[in-house]
Amino acid sequence: MNEGTVTLANTLQRVRSESPLVHNITNYVVMNTTANALLAIGASPVMAHAIEEVEVMATYARALVLNIGTLSSSWVEAMLHAGRVARARGIPIVLDPVGAGATPLRTSVARQLLDELLPQVVRGNASEILALTEASSKTKGVDSADGVESALGAAQALVRRYGIVVSVSGPVDLVVGKDTLFRIHNGHPMMTQVTGMGCTATALTGAMLAVTSSPVQAAAEAMLLSGIAGELAATRSKGPGSFQVEFLDALYRLDEREIRARAKWEVI
Amino acid sequence: MNEGTVTLANTLQRVRSESPLVHNITNYVVMNTTANALLAIGASPVMAHAIEEVEVMATYARALVLNIGTLSSSWVEAMLHAGRVARARGIPIVLDPVGAGATPLRTSVARQLLDELLPQVVRGNASEILALTEASSKTKGVDSADGVESALGAAQALVRRYGIVVSVSGPVDLVVGKDTLFRIHNGHPMMTQVTGMGCTATALTGAMLAVTSSPVQAAAEAMLLSGIAGELAATRSKGPGSFQVEFLDALYRLDEREIRARAKWEVI
Amino acid sequence: MNEGTVTLANTLQRVRSESPLVHNITNYVVMNTTANALLAIGASPVMAHAIEEVEVMATYARALVLNIGTLSSSWVEAMLHAGRVARARGIPIVLDPVGAGATPLRTSVARQLLDELLPQVVRGNASEILALTEASSKTKGVDSADGVESALGAAQALVRRYGIVVSVSGPVDLVVGKDTLFRIHNGHPMMTQVTGMGCTATALTGAMLAVTSSPVQAAAEAMLLSGIAGELAATRSKGPGSFQVEFLDALYRLDEREIRARAKWEVI
Repeated sequence: MNEGTVTLANTLQRVRSESPLVHNITNYVVMNTTANALLAIGASPVMAHAIEEVEVMATYARALVLNIGTLSSSWVEAMLHAGRVARARGIPIVLDPVGAGATPLRTSVARQLLDELLPQVVRGNASEILALTEASSKTKGVDSADGVESALGAAQALVRRYGIVVSVSGPVDLVVGKDTLFRIHNGHPMMTQVTGMGCTATALTGAMLAVTSSPVQAAAEAMLLSGIAGELAATRSKGPGSFQVEFLDALYRLDEREIRARAKWEVI
Repeated sequence: MNEGTVTLANTLQRVRSESPLVHNITNYVVMNTTANALLAIGASPVMAHAIEEVEVMATYARALVLNIGTLSSSWVEAMLHAGRVARARGIPIVLDPVGAGATPLRTSVARQLLDELLPQVVRGNASEILALTEASSKTKGVDSADGVESALGAAQALVRRYGIVVSVSGPVDLVVGKDTLFRIHNGHPMMTQVTGMGCTATALTGAMLAVTSSPVQAAAEAMLLSGIAGELAATRSKGPGSFQVEFLDALYRLDEREIRARAKWEVI
Repeated sequence: MNEGTVTLANTLQRVRSESPLVHNITNYVVMNTTANALLAIGASPVMAHAIEEVEVMATYARALVLNIGTLSSSWVEAMLHAGRVARARGIPIVLDPVGAGATPLRTSVARQLLDELLPQVVRGNASEILALTEASSKTKGVDSADGVESALGAAQALVRRYGIVVSVSGPVDLVVGKDTLFRIHNGHPMMTQVTGMGCTATALTGAMLAVTSSPVQAAAEAMLLSGIAGELAATRSKGPGSFQVEFLDALYRLDEREIRARAKWEVI
């Protein structure tokens, strides 16, 4: 375990003091969940998808979160437009290719967003990351997860090809940069029993990107943050209902002492 | 009380072990709620409404849930398309005609979906079920409920006409099949004080349909499941906020002992 | 403190006994939240945005809530149509100009809705209210708040120009009518750490308008209700997750004794 990289507490402190505006174009299912997670860590979320205003929102924001969980064509257009503005202005982008591999539409839209926007970070589960590289892949659905390790090769290929960071969530999370590989051992199985935990990790990645100069560090810290809050919530709850309540409370209250006590990650 | 029909525990076990993919085209208000309810019982929910992908999703899924709670024309088109694919492939459909009777649009869309898709189960409250048969009916809104018994005749007429199962929620739930009538006495008034409990019962019906060969049994078990979880949640909460938390926890933890202790249903 | 105006308990009693239908055309992020808040106080919420049915819904409803939090052009059209029907039938309207000032689209849509519909009440934060009057204003995002007092002049200008009531939320809430100014000192900082509390106050204003003949009284009582429930929830929770649960429970359980003990408002 690389104790020297436990910088999460500092980054979290920056989010809390700077309250960066994070612009989300995300799916209907998790909008409320991810807005509340961003607020819980002190960021300032805005949800806006109208083609007429995404340009202005992307101008104000310090990070842009794109999530294709409930896709339709007008939303894709808004994502592309907001993404181009963000790129032109140096605003970091995180892309969540929800359901890539599950339908041709999602796979092709995810690849298009990746190709055209070159997001600083792509965050998905193993099957979604695999779908971004393979010619054909079978995905049972948005919650399915092959072993995360099987996605390591795909993640590394994406990193080499696009110069981005790839964050793969699973029992062990992998965050892959050009010269860096994080393995994050925090988290809890209950996190797979509530909707939107992956989307939340993506939104938290956006907040971390907003205040950090290193995308790979930001991506890894977001997974660590999510994993530790998930562990704390699981110990304090008796099912997925109370878990969600405790998860937000844990994000809100997380301090350096708790991070140091719980962080289990390696960097290679 | 027909103890012999307490098969809910077995069905729930099948959902937990098989984790069937349940495809939902549902309303904005409850998407998060019903996704979490499905996850809490072990099913694998997917929410997808884009016309370009509903066909593929309907192919993968083991049940299709259609809910017209926040209607617009492109969503109706997606429901019809997904429903036709599901029918062609023998994937069971459950329809929730939310607000039928409240506006001409909802009434006509609900009837169109019923006519064209012949869903295995239609689940609604008394006024919605009445609206599917009567030439004119007055509904105060989506939460209004005439006495459930007044909808029994309408439900039986729909069963005869379409060969479907009709599930009517209310103080006593009725589940009406060709030769079977269930009366389910579980539930709690607090269930009317939170949004999406009817929609949740519909989603749970989808999960039960996915693993059961008998639509009438699946529909009755879903109402029983929802009613028992509602009772447990009501005893453990002090208002509609804590009720929702406890409801998800109860769904997640429900076991055979608790089902046997609480189930109050009759079958005729 | 003007004890004589503590009429909130009576109004709340009317909502609970009459269960007025409140029609909401609101944003995706808070639909579930505001529906549940309305149910918690005993109102009957309906969410409907299809242009084909908003006219009928607006006919049945006793109040119309318009909220531009996640804007797109078809929704604006529906808001205008529903609003015109409501006006023609004397159904009170409350407008929440979410994010006015943040983008030109939101500012212009908010002003158009204000001009064309003359809602009985406009409820927003300070920067949103300022944006409705000033030629140019800078808003960081939907959650930003200038000092509320700085919006007093803008609110008074809107009141004079349009003959409406303006409700400004902040550390101290201001409710401004033609001859009346309420200052409401209830509330808690935690209310800014969860999404949708402003939108919830707007929805509660709709319910109060439905049963009250005085818009300024209704608007003030809604802010008082929200503020007291927020205080109670904050004392009973340990973060934004449990706060939301306790807030709904507090709305549901609030009684006259608690209102009298906690209400801190002045009327001038």
